[in-house]
This record gives sequence, structure tokens and C-alpha cells, in this order.
Amino acid sequence: MSHKIDDVLEAVLASYAEYPAIGKIGETHFPKRHLILSALKKLQCVIFPGFFDEKELRNDNIRFYAGQLLEEIRELLTEQIAKTLRLFTEEFCDASDEVVQERSEEIVGTFLAAIPRIREYLATDIEAAFEGDPAAFSRDEVISSYPGIYATMVNRIAHELYELGVPLIPRIMTEHAHSVTGIDIHPGAKLGKYFFIDHGTGIVIGETSKIGEHAKIYQGVTLGALSTRGGQALKGVKRHPTIEDDVTIYSGASILGGETVISEGAVIGGNSFVTKSVPEQTRVSAKMPELQFKRQENVEFQSGEFLNYEI
Amino acid sequence: MSHKIDDVLEAVLASYAEYPAIGKIGETHFPKRHLILSALKKLQCVIFPGFFDEKELRNDNIRFYAGQLLEEIRELLTEQIAKTLRLFTEEFCDASDEVVQERSEEIVGTFLAAIPRIREYLATDIEAAFEGDPAAFSRDEVISSYPGIYATMVNRIAHELYELGVPLIPRIMTEHAHSVTGIDIHPGAKLGKYFFIDHGTGIVIGETSKIGEHAKIYQGVTLGALSTRGGQALKGVKRHPTIEDDVTIYSGASILGGETVISEGAVIGGNSFVTKSVPEQTRVSAKMPELQFKRQENVEFQSGEFLNYEI
Amino acid sequence: MSHKIDDVLEAVLASYAEYPAIGKIGETHFPKRHLILSALKKLQCVIFPGFFDEKELRNDNIRFYAGQLLEEIRELLTEQIAKTLRLFTEEFCDASDEVVQERSEEIVGTFLAAIPRIREYLATDIEAAFEGDPAAFSRDEVISSYPGIYATMVNRIAHELYELGVPLIPRIMTEHAHSVTGIDIHPGAKLGKYFFIDHGTGIVIGETSKIGEHAKIYQGVTLGALSTRGGQALKGVKRHPTIEDDVTIYSGASILGGETVISEGAVIGGNSFVTKSVPEQTRVSAKMPELQFKRQENVEFQSGEFLNYEI
Repeated sequence: MSHKIDDVLEAVLASYAEYPAIGKIGETHFPKRHLILSALKKLQCVIFPGFFDEKELRNDNIRFYAGQLLEEIRELLTEQIAKTLRLFTEEFCDASDEVVQERSEEIVGTFLAAIPRIREYLATDIEAAFEGDPAAFSRDEVISSYPGIYATMVNRIAHELYELGVPLIPRIMTEHAHSVTGIDIHPGAKLGKYFFIDHGTGIVIGETSKIGEHAKIYQGVTLGALSTRGGQALKGVKRHPTIEDDVTIYSGASILGGETVISEGAVIGGNSFVTKSVPEQTRVSAKMPELQFKRQENVEFQSGEFLNYEI
Repeated sequence: MSHKIDDVLEAVLASYAEYPAIGKIGETHFPKRHLILSALKKLQCVIFPGFFDEKELRNDNIRFYAGQLLEEIRELLTEQIAKTLRLFTEEFCDASDEVVQERSEEIVGTFLAAIPRIREYLATDIEAAFEGDPAAFSRDEVISSYPGIYATMVNRIAHELYELGVPLIPRIMTEHAHSVTGIDIHPGAKLGKYFFIDHGTGIVIGETSKIGEHAKIYQGVTLGALSTRGGQALKGVKRHPTIEDDVTIYSGASILGGETVISEGAVIGGNSFVTKSVPEQTRVSAKMPELQFKRQENVEFQSGEFLNYEI
Repeated sequence: MSHKIDDVLEAVLASYAEYPAIGKIGETHFPKRHLILSALKKLQCVIFPGFFDEKELRNDNIRFYAGQLLEEIRELLTEQIAKTLRLFTEEFCDASDEVVQERSEEIVGTFLAAIPRIREYLATDIEAAFEGDPAAFSRDEVISSYPGIYATMVNRIAHELYELGVPLIPRIMTEHAHSVTGIDIHPGAKLGKYFFIDHGTGIVIGETSKIGEHAKIYQGVTLGALSTRGGQALKGVKRHPTIEDDVTIYSGASILGGETVISEGAVIGGNSFVTKSVPEQTRVSAKMPELQFKRQENVEFQSGEFLNYEI
């Protein structure tokens, strides 16, 4: 058997040589995913102290605890961001280590200074979730268990880094949140205050979406792009909608297109398919598919007529 | 840099003081999420012995093994439940430690005594999954890998605790299951025996739902509330539907409203949108959207006409 | 209290005796889930070296590193596969340990030899994702963060084992990927090269699906079976569709039935419900539900008319 393993190893090494782009060998600047996710976990502990920590926080240890966490986050992010700047930006790919390090420290400094503002925004998101959901038992329950709050927190963190020009890392963070919550918010998406996601599974919010304050979004909603089948040629173009203040979007609705604006106070009904702008204070509702009722005993099942299926 | 970290720390500490509600500092009674999830993991090992443990279980070690796990679960839950009773209930917020501890022990005793009943119900759920799914290779596969079984197990555990008046902890458990499975079942929802969820991603089952025996539910189904935009004012009101025995609900269907009753033996077709009661033995099916077919070469893509889009 | 725990323990042990099928006590051949997932994690590190490892890989350590991982994978899989062969196959349930071990080693040898081919296919999948998605910043981002790539990788691994007749283990692997990504691809499903899943949450691809090259599939798509309510009686029958080369399936579409063939170059619009074959180069689009627009101030909310609801 050990002979066969040797053959497998040679074949695998040959495969590494044949497809260098799907491996990172000798690429010491490639960022480490587990360290990025470790920084994200520590950020969650700094942002909601006492909710996710294993330690008990008291007034006499909080300064030491938060200081220690911030220092660890600073160190992790500075190292990982320096790597991505060198690997993925034209500006820094040939720069000296000192220049890259300096820029990375600058970015991390700006990012860390934004934590109080991120907390301020998240405080409004929690308020919106508690006020809007009769099943919410307390604000503590919202923070401890609502996937929408987690996904929103990660977007608010990742969006700061995205705006500061950090490659790769913001997307690793938001795709981690997507995995945990089923909510896929691109780091480029801009979310206003009092943002409330209920249930959330299946939500997709594209890169160039802009969302105002007091938005409520339910499971299965897509803020997407109209196809132009352009692939990479579309990079940078505004492809996703703008949602103004006080808009509610019910489950399963799709709103598509970079020029589509849902104006203030509009309500988009469930399963609506919207590709044009909607004026303010307007309710849009999709005509529900007509239902047929048949007593079981008289019915021969006809495929295509009924939507009954198993997989 | 360390100077900047000091500034950040001061700003973060000021933010803690400004938004005390989104932090738990000096709140030594706040329950610990990781300990609650640890208890849940141990419960899974007690409920399905030999499936999820790292240890090999034999007849000569099972008594010791199960006894040890039960003792650990008892200890973890008693401590965490005592904290939530003190923090989140009017009855116990000012009670003595002894009174709170006693009530918590009583709850945990009642809960642990329910484990054999939970197993009895889960045995029926596994039977229903195996019998109903041609892709199921064995009952062992169902237990080892079906997300619907995991979400159902967590609901059955959390529902016991919810009924016993435990705050916060049941929701932390079910939202953990939501994260793992994409299936969002509120701890308040009442599930009958032989409950079968297939695939499951995107299912939402609201707090006041009641489901009879032999229900089959597919991916993307919502058992929800009709909006009254009442938020917290609706707490406690029955807002979600009642599903009687032997009902099948195919993928993407929404059934809404607290007075909506789906009677015995009914079959709800995929993508149906149901807001009124359905009589027994009745098949409801949504008329499918009409399909248009066009050969590619002749077609200019018109946004809004076709549902083709990328994000 | 310890007295009560004794009572609980006796009741739990009695429950184990009453429902032996939902426990594995004294069943030393039952495979260990955590070891199967450990092998899967190591396979990810071998397949995409440098992306998910904690170690830095260089040309002077890669041979040792990959060799070590392959040896660990070989050992883990050989042991777990031997267990499942004995427990779940008629051919090996009464065989000698030597015979089972030999067959398991043979399977693992064949599987490991397939790793370069799996990498070759995944290299095409990554190319398709990068080319097709304007939000993709680099191939490295695709590998590091796209859930569709992870789900595809796990299917490609699990499908090899499924084809080699390994019970249980492939499904544990794909259901793990389902949990991580919201994408449910049965190990039996056959995926062609250049397979691209975007967003992915809510995708279900059934056991007997066959998919050609250059397929693009969006979130919420189902490749399912038409119900015949046959349950276990349908095992082995082709129940799921065939998708030929260069087909795109937009979000929320359902394609059902084992005889349904989507021919080369077809495009299936979002939310289409397709139960019959579609000819080549044909665009299928679902007529969108008509939208109603009403100004808010004049509207009394009528349940059932609008799709506005909360849960």
C-alpha cells in the first residue's frame, strides 16, 4: 500500500505543477483564512462584550479585556492585510516591506477607529429587530441568536475594509457569515441604520446595492442584477438596486437592476418580481397564482398540473 | 501604533458606556452561549448514542457513559437556566439564590425526565424520513446526515424548555439549528409524531404553529403570520397556522395566519400561497406561471420579460 | 438531585433497550462521523494546497506535507469504509476481516488515484465562476470563499466514493457541505466540467441528476423528482432530470422528472416550473405574476390580497 501512496503522491505533485493557480505553494504572502476568521470572532467579542465571550466581564476587568482583544485584532489584521495588499493590488505588489506594512497599519488604524460607529449602527439594527418582531423576547435574544444581526454585523465590518481598499479579506468574512446564516450580503453593499432582516435564509444582496434607513427584509429576497451576460466586463458598474428609507420587502421578492430605485416608504409584496423603479409610499403586490382545490378521492395525479413532488 | 490603540480603546470604552444594552459588563448572570451549545451537543449524544460520540459505546460502558453525560447536562443547564430566570423573569428577578436554584433544578429534573419521550418521538420521525424518501439508504443515514432530523431534535428539546418557561436558552438552541440546517423552527412551534422535513433549506415555522402527526414538509416552506404590522403588540397572539394529521406541504408553499387550519389529509402543492383554511383530504395546487419558449437566435433580451439575471 | 439523575438514567437506558435502531451500542463497526469529516478537511487541504492549511507551504516542504496528508487520509478512509462495508453491504457483512480490509484498501487506492482528476475538474469550475461573475475579484477569492466551489468539491469527492459502492460516507460528506453552504447535492448526482453555482443557498440537486459541461445554476434551483409517492419503492429509478452542455438555470427554477432533458444551450428563466423536456438553444421563461401598485394612504390592508406578512 505504501507503494501505491507513493504513486498517488507523485501524481498529486504533478497535478500541483500542472495547475499552479489552484494552489499556493511558495506563496508566503497568501493570507490565512483561519486567522481572518479568528480576527472576526474577536471583533464580535469587542462589539458585543459579554455576549459571546467565555470570560465574565466586569467593570474592573473590561479595560484590560477589551485592550487585549483590540491588540490581538490589530496584529492579526495588519499581518493579513499586508499580505493581500502585496498580492492583489497593483500599487503595492512591488513595494518595499516597510511601505506595505505602513499602509496596512494605517488601514487597520482607520478601521479600528470605526468600531464605535459600527456599534452605534448595530444598536439601531437591534432596536429595529426587537420592535419589528413579535417573536422577539428581548434585545438580548436578538443579539444572542438572530442570524440577521450576525450577517449585518459582518457586513458592517467587511464594508469598512472594502471601502479602505482591502482585497479578499472582506469577502472571506461575508461568505463566512453567508455560511453561518444563509444570508449573502456582498461587502460592497451599503446598509443604512435600523436595518432589519427576519429569518433571512436565502437572502442575496449584491455588491452595488444601496439601502437606506429602516429597511425590513425577509427570507428569500434578492437584490440582484439584470443579466447582461457580461461577466467580468461588468466589474465596477452599478448593477444592483437602490432602496430608500422606510422600505419593507417581503419574502421571496426579487428586485433587479442598477437603475431600479425603490423610493421612500414603499412596500414590496412577497414574491414580487420588480425590475423598474417604484414611487414613494407605494405598495407593490404580486397577483398570487390561482389555487385549485380538489378532493383527494377523485383525483388522478397528473404531473405538471400539480406541484407535488419529492426528491 | 500602541498610542493609537490606546485612543481606540478609550473610544470603545466610551461606546460601551453609551450603549449599555448591547453589552453585558458586570452582568454576571448573563448565560454563556458556548455552554448552552455544549449542553445541546451532549444531549445529541445522549439521544442518539453511538452516532455522534467520539467514544465507542458498548454494553459494559454505556451506563457509565450516559450517566456521566446526563450529570454534565444537568450541571450545565441548571446553572444557565438559573441565570436566565433571574435576568429575564419578573417572578425570579428579586428572589434569593436558593429559590432561583431550586426552581432551576426542578425545571432541569422535569426536562431530563422527558428525554425518553423525546427519543420516542424522534424514532417516529426517523421512520417517516426513511419510509418517505427513496434517496434514504438506511435509517442510520437518516440519523447521521439528515438536517431535518437535527432541526426536529433541537425543536423537541427546545420546546420542552420553552413550555417550562425557560427564557432565551430555547431560542439560542433553535437558532443554532437554523444556522446548521437552514431550517428555522421557533421553540414555541408544536410538532406531532412522524414529522418529516426533506432537504429543508429555507423552511420557516413560526412560534404559534401547531402541526399534527405524519406531516411532510419540503424546502422553502413558510408557516407564517399575516402581517398586521403590530410588532411587539402581537406577542402571545396565535399568529401562525394549524396543520392537522397526514398533511403534505410541497416546496416553496406559504401558509399564513393564526386562524388558518390545514385539515387532515390535505396536500398543499408547491409554491401555493394559502391564507384560508383548507378542508380535509383536499389537494390545493397553484396554477403554474405560463412558460414561454423562444429559440435563442431570434431573441433580443428584454429585461422584465424574462427572468434571466445574474448577481 | 443525584437520586433523580439515577431515575433519569434508568429511564434513558430503558429507552435505549426499547429503541435499539436509533442507538449504536455494542456496534463497534459503526463509522465515526468526526473522523469522516476530518478526512474531508484533509482532502480539501490536499486539493487546494495553501488555501486552507494553517502551515505555509513551500517547494521544499510540499512533498512531505502532501505525503503526510495523503497517508492520514488513506488511514482514516480505509478504516471508516471497512466499517460501512461490513455494516451496510450484503456482500461483506459476513466476510472475514481480511477480505473487508482488502476491499476497503482497494477502494481507497482507486479513490486517491482520482485526486488529480478531481483537481482538473475543479480547476475548470473555478475558471467558470471567475469568468461568469462580475463580483469575483480573483480566482483566489473564488477558491477561498465561494460556497459553490466548496459544495462542488465535496460532490466530486463524494461521487467517486458513491460510484465505488461506499455506503453512508458520501452522504455524510455532502450533507456536511449542505450544512456549510445551503447547497444540497446528492452524492449520486453527476456534474460535468465548468460547473458554476452562484450564491447557491437553497439549491437541491437530486440523486439521479446528470449535468453536462458549462452549466450555470443560481440560488434556489431544484433539480427534483415528480412525485409518485412511492417512497422506498422508487430506489434506483432515474427520478431526476438530465441537463446537457451549456445550460443556464436562473434562480428559483424547478426542473422535475427523470425523463426531463434540458438540451444543449437552453436557458431556463427564474421561477420556471419545468416538467417536460426543453429543446436545444431554447429560452424558457415564466410569465411573471402581474404586479399591482397602490399608494399607501388609500389602502386598507386586506389579507390574501397582498403578500405582506411577518412571522
